[in-house]
Amino acid sequence: MSRFPELLPESMKAVRLHAYDGKPESTHVEDAPVERPGPGQVTIRIAAAPINPSDVMFVRGLYGLTKPIPAIPGFEGAGTIVSVGPGLYGRWLLGKRVACGTQPEGGGTWAEYVTTSTRLCMPLPKRLSVEQGAMAMANPVTAIALLREAKDRGHRAAVHGAAAGALGRILLRIASKAGYPIIHIVRREEQVRLLEELGAEVVLNATSPDYLEQLKEVSHRLGATIAFDPIGGEFTGQLVEALPRGSQILVYGALSAEDARVDPRKLIFDGKQIEGFWFSEWAEKKGTWQTISCVRKAMKGTGVEWTTEVAERVALDDVSDALLRYEKQMTRGKVLILPSLSGP
Amino acid sequence: MSRFPELLPESMKAVRLHAYDGKPESTHVEDAPVERPGPGQVTIRIAAAPINPSDVMFVRGLYGLTKPIPAIPGFEGAGTIVSVGPGLYGRWLLGKRVACGTQPEGGGTWAEYVTTSTRLCMPLPKRLSVEQGAMAMANPVTAIALLREAKDRGHRAAVHGAAAGALGRILLRIASKAGYPIIHIVRREEQVRLLEELGAEVVLNATSPDYLEQLKEVSHRLGATIAFDPIGGEFTGQLVEALPRGSQILVYGALSAEDARVDPRKLIFDGKQIEGFWFSEWAEKKGTWQTISCVRKAMKGTGVEWTTEVAERVALDDVSDALLRYEKQMTRGKVLILPSLSGP
Repeated sequence: MSRFPELLPESMKAVRLHAYDGKPESTHVEDAPVERPGPGQVTIRIAAAPINPSDVMFVRGLYGLTKPIPAIPGFEGAGTIVSVGPGLYGRWLLGKRVACGTQPEGGGTWAEYVTTSTRLCMPLPKRLSVEQGAMAMANPVTAIALLREAKDRGHRAAVHGAAAGALGRILLRIASKAGYPIIHIVRREEQVRLLEELGAEVVLNATSPDYLEQLKEVSHRLGATIAFDPIGGEFTGQLVEALPRGSQILVYGALSAEDARVDPRKLIFDGKQIEGFWFSEWAEKKGTWQTISCVRKAMKGTGVEWTTEVAERVALDDVSDALLRYEKQMTRGKVLILPSLSGP
Repeated sequence: MSRFPELLPESMKAVRLHAYDGKPESTHVEDAPVERPGPGQVTIRIAAAPINPSDVMFVRGLYGLTKPIPAIPGFEGAGTIVSVGPGLYGRWLLGKRVACGTQPEGGGTWAEYVTTSTRLCMPLPKRLSVEQGAMAMANPVTAIALLREAKDRGHRAAVHGAAAGALGRILLRIASKAGYPIIHIVRREEQVRLLEELGAEVVLNATSPDYLEQLKEVSHRLGATIAFDPIGGEFTGQLVEALPRGSQILVYGALSAEDARVDPRKLIFDGKQIEGFWFSEWAEKKGTWQTISCVRKAMKGTGVEWTTEVAERVALDDVSDALLRYEKQMTRGKVLILPSLSGP
């Protein structure tokens, strides 16, 4: 019962994983079937899709979900809806430019087309480019949800690691606007200056010799009893060590690729706590309205309150190499995949 | 205003710490002043006091509190009340045999006398020896509180590490009596047999090659979504790895003397959580009645539902050496300090 205003091709070019090992030779660009949209689904012709830290975890098999092999990666993107399954909302969406997320059981956005649920599509405001729209979901909603969590739990201020990354900069903007104090932690002096230029009031460099002392002093002074930790490893233990009594650490990433290492005594005698944070889980727990309100806020802020810098635009054929470059230096800006670029 | 039915001496023999480094040469037996009881306080002539894991942490400066040096260690003990400060309850206690805990700002029980709050004294039932009475506080109340916490939070079953130790055996008894399933984890085959003889239904050996698989299988089957962890190190990470989605780990000790090492992804994608548990904090949060009810239950069960094995009885002069022996093998039974034994 699908509508085909544009004849959907039978097959497309797509990046496909043949093993979850993160090796370039396991990632191929090849012909893959174009899925037809079922009830409540649409098919989008992808204009742009980013490489996010969660994608890096996914291709290595380290993410919270895996898909049957060969799997198409990519959790978000933007493009035009070219085909819709049965359903009124889908029909209204036909032909529109949208930002989209992907379904756990479906294909990813690193392809010419993706088929996903209408519930994971948000029409792009006219002012918003598809490039910025392609990055309007994953990072912004996580930043918004983390900040809500901090406020809802009654913490007066928060600490954020990897503050110079895309998510960190968005968090800086929404927290500044809300007048909520954030202690931003980075690892290079030029990132300190960068964040200060963007309006950050407290930025610490984790590589400076008195980092722990500074973190202790400022977290106690501001009452920062919650931390957002995308890093793990030794970094988590330092947060547990330095933050005030009763602090909570929300681990939402594993950029260090190392086990979090924590002194048990700091947990026992200082009443501290570590837990995971995953937007998918959070959204499920909070329900539809909170989730929609997060996604709306993300869409409204993207391109207005914040713009995510694009470091590089690559064709599908260049994704394997681009992944390696991205893993090496995540803070230099996003890598965007543009299927319309012809391969090398 | 104190009453002195027995003339309190000016000084006594006591174990005193001169540095928080755990070295035998920092622990001396020497003359120390006998504190006079103030309002709401009593002085107890100590008959017996145990060496607990918390004492080992204390002498190394790793516990949640330190006292000014020279400090007398020992968090619990039993003896006879020989002097009381102003207050009706104290007057009633005079001459009675009691189990006692110590005040954070006062002396410890590794001495001939200790002065403490009447609120930390419980008269010993006639049936109970001072030796068992001396061990009726720290371990039993922690075991009781942990089990209450598991039930109050709605977990159907729990996991316990270091299950062959004094606390582990008490937990086994109270959980069996309450019909609450516990997965007991030990590190030696003879401990498996020992706990099974004591009535344990599920005992795992953490050194067996398929330990993780077993823990995964049985924790999922029983719905054991909470763990009590006195160990830290790699053990904590294994609990986080094996237990079902959404599990909580209560870390209450650091027997491994190593940082807890935890895969961040298990926290993020499996919604798991690690927090500290300290009876002192718990008691403060839960309030007087819950605490008294715990202490009563501990006193009622000691010597009836459980008896803690005494591996060794030592004089004050032998404490330094006994500490070293105890640290090496905590599960062989308790070391009791009896001030009445003359030194070597």
